[in-house]
Amino acid sequence: MKNPNIVILGAGYGGIMTTVKLQKALGVNEATITLVNKNDYHYQATWLHENAAGTRHHDDTRIPIRDVVNFSKVKFVQDSVVSINPDKKKVQLAYGELDYDILVVGLGFEAATFGIPGLEEHAFMINNINSARLLRDHLEYTFAKYHNEADHHEGRLNIVVGGGGFTGIEFVGELANRVPKLCREYDIDPAQVRIINVEGAPSIMPGFDPQLAEYAMNSLEARGVEFITGAMLKKCEADKIVYEKDGVQEEVPTLTTVWAAGVKANSIVENSGFTTNRGKVEVRDDMRAPDYDDVFVVGDCALIMDESTGRPYPPTAQIAIQEAELIAKNIKAMVRGEEMEPFEPDLKGTVASLGHNDAIGVIFDNTKIFGWKATVMKKVIDNRYLFKLGGIGLLLKKGKFNIFY
Amino acid sequence: MKNPNIVILGAGYGGIMTTVKLQKALGVNEATITLVNKNDYHYQATWLHENAAGTRHHDDTRIPIRDVVNFSKVKFVQDSVVSINPDKKKVQLAYGELDYDILVVGLGFEAATFGIPGLEEHAFMINNINSARLLRDHLEYTFAKYHNEADHHEGRLNIVVGGGGFTGIEFVGELANRVPKLCREYDIDPAQVRIINVEGAPSIMPGFDPQLAEYAMNSLEARGVEFITGAMLKKCEADKIVYEKDGVQEEVPTLTTVWAAGVKANSIVENSGFTTNRGKVEVRDDMRAPDYDDVFVVGDCALIMDESTGRPYPPTAQIAIQEAELIAKNIKAMVRGEEMEPFEPDLKGTVASLGHNDAIGVIFDNTKIFGWKATVMKKVIDNRYLFKLGGIGLLLKKGKFNIFY
Repeated sequence: MKNPNIVILGAGYGGIMTTVKLQKALGVNEATITLVNKNDYHYQATWLHENAAGTRHHDDTRIPIRDVVNFSKVKFVQDSVVSINPDKKKVQLAYGELDYDILVVGLGFEAATFGIPGLEEHAFMINNINSARLLRDHLEYTFAKYHNEADHHEGRLNIVVGGGGFTGIEFVGELANRVPKLCREYDIDPAQVRIINVEGAPSIMPGFDPQLAEYAMNSLEARGVEFITGAMLKKCEADKIVYEKDGVQEEVPTLTTVWAAGVKANSIVENSGFTTNRGKVEVRDDMRAPDYDDVFVVGDCALIMDESTGRPYPPTAQIAIQEAELIAKNIKAMVRGEEMEPFEPDLKGTVASLGHNDAIGVIFDNTKIFGWKATVMKKVIDNRYLFKLGGIGLLLKKGKFNIFY
Repeated sequence: MKNPNIVILGAGYGGIMTTVKLQKALGVNEATITLVNKNDYHYQATWLHENAAGTRHHDDTRIPIRDVVNFSKVKFVQDSVVSINPDKKKVQLAYGELDYDILVVGLGFEAATFGIPGLEEHAFMINNINSARLLRDHLEYTFAKYHNEADHHEGRLNIVVGGGGFTGIEFVGELANRVPKLCREYDIDPAQVRIINVEGAPSIMPGFDPQLAEYAMNSLEARGVEFITGAMLKKCEADKIVYEKDGVQEEVPTLTTVWAAGVKANSIVENSGFTTNRGKVEVRDDMRAPDYDDVFVVGDCALIMDESTGRPYPPTAQIAIQEAELIAKNIKAMVRGEEMEPFEPDLKGTVASLGHNDAIGVIFDNTKIFGWKATVMKKVIDNRYLFKLGGIGLLLKKGKFNIFY
């Protein structure tokens, strides 16, 4: 191909890594590269639960795009994607339109509320910097109100987190660290505060190693977190939630419901005419959409079946980054008329944090780790990503180095 | 008097200074001293506008009572005063009752809303640590919501401050410093934010030197504050205020109304059967209530006429502290059967801050000061109080020493 117009949509894990790898792989005369993103920053979605709990400032979590993308090689357009027309090879933005020869769709996830009434209106989400920052401030504000009301609302200091999966558990872990500090800041007896995790499955971390899930539950319960498992959220109102367990409906009064129980691919993908499976594009081996030779899909918008389990690979940062690296390689091959390679995930394991002082994980060959060792491993993973994205400079700027904390 | 039971109500400027002076003046066998206060801390009400704007943490503003009161000499009761029965010499508390031989009433002020509809429900006040902290968090929360709403509320970033007197002006001064920082924290263009001060009189700082008031207005306008003078607030709603100017009613959409235009004495005083004038006890020369030889009144609950102007002295910290020093002396005289002294205020001047980098003031013999000099003088006043209250230790801990900031 002669000087193709490559457009990358989204600067999440997949989009930004594709961009960074492509700007190195291709010469400036080989292709025009354009990156489109709503914000002028990339953020590490896997750190958002810390921002939301208020245990880490969101500026640590986000990285200005100009810090990792070379604007003399890549054109950056700060705008929102409205729709894609893959037949006409056009992308509609809120404030313009782009043509492409090669497209990379990395538009990430959005919350899935499964039609549960009231969640859209009343629940907080941990989807991006804006919503995480809002949740942090909501927590502070609701604690601040306590000593300003003559009659305390009975749910004033109850924090309900819907979902005992990865995000929900990592978030309550941070909350368990944060609540004592909030109590000092607002002169509140910590015994008044409840952190309640509601999970539909019989135990938390469904799909994760059951022994480690139990370890997590014990660790968090010891720090005051309550678990209600096997309970389906039925309704969320401004001042309570309703769940059903064993056929009985129960209420919990609360002014703070956090919904961390479901994500789905950005609905732009489904609405743009791609063939989808569960809202995602089931990509070919080389990460291209089945119907379009010039469209790659990366990260949470892409679906790849794991043939050993018969289920899709989970939508993790790890997979998105590996996909992005292959997509950059394959685009280079495409531009130079060479052979493309198939995607082969290299699963290195998963670590879930339980606050800053505990974690659980399964690494490499199914070795289970927990406690301090797992917290260190979690930081190694985070630091490895920063190094990959922005080299030693970014690692030093944003890395997590305090392994004793 | 033989070992009288001295009860001091309130640990504001007047109450805490009376207690500190009394514990030095009287031997442990001469009297029993009891201090009653709602919180286990004293706070400097004149710093609250900084806490409310978020430019100073409230822990800087408050002082644990145990840090300045010697609990081996003074009994401290943490409780709220409900009512006083001066005929039976009893004080009703929320959780008990106290008898006294000598009483000091230092119950401070509460907001006066003059019956303006909606203020009680919707406006924020700067009355105490709790309400100041709430306002700080409300500001952060409302800024955080900006990027989480599809259609911005037109009043989202409008901050309306009712009252261009001392508190209102000092608060907008801090806001002018704070807003640029809030904008950085929440990714908001500062040009979107409005700080609007509404004052009923034809100009701000009524009663203050007109030249200095104009200086203040210019200084604040240069930092983006808008003034609407000669305007009476008519109504406050959840999402707007209505004011009347030149016979015409106008609206300003806002989600943040701060009422800083009026205070009155704690209504417990009026409800306890004392003879009052404008809700305050017009005390005798020796600071005792006219009808009761065993009741002293200090600070904002006391009224003293300035014979040179025919108007009451303003309810300032300066006056309260001087009153407290005399009351401690007079109680000592009473206990020892000596002569009491009359109150003679020694007005040293007044300084109003306009954010951390500007101020206006009138000192000693009507010398006008402004700018850097006035900001230094303001700090000198604050530090002098800390030294008086808790000696060099407290001064070093809580003092304001950075005169170049």
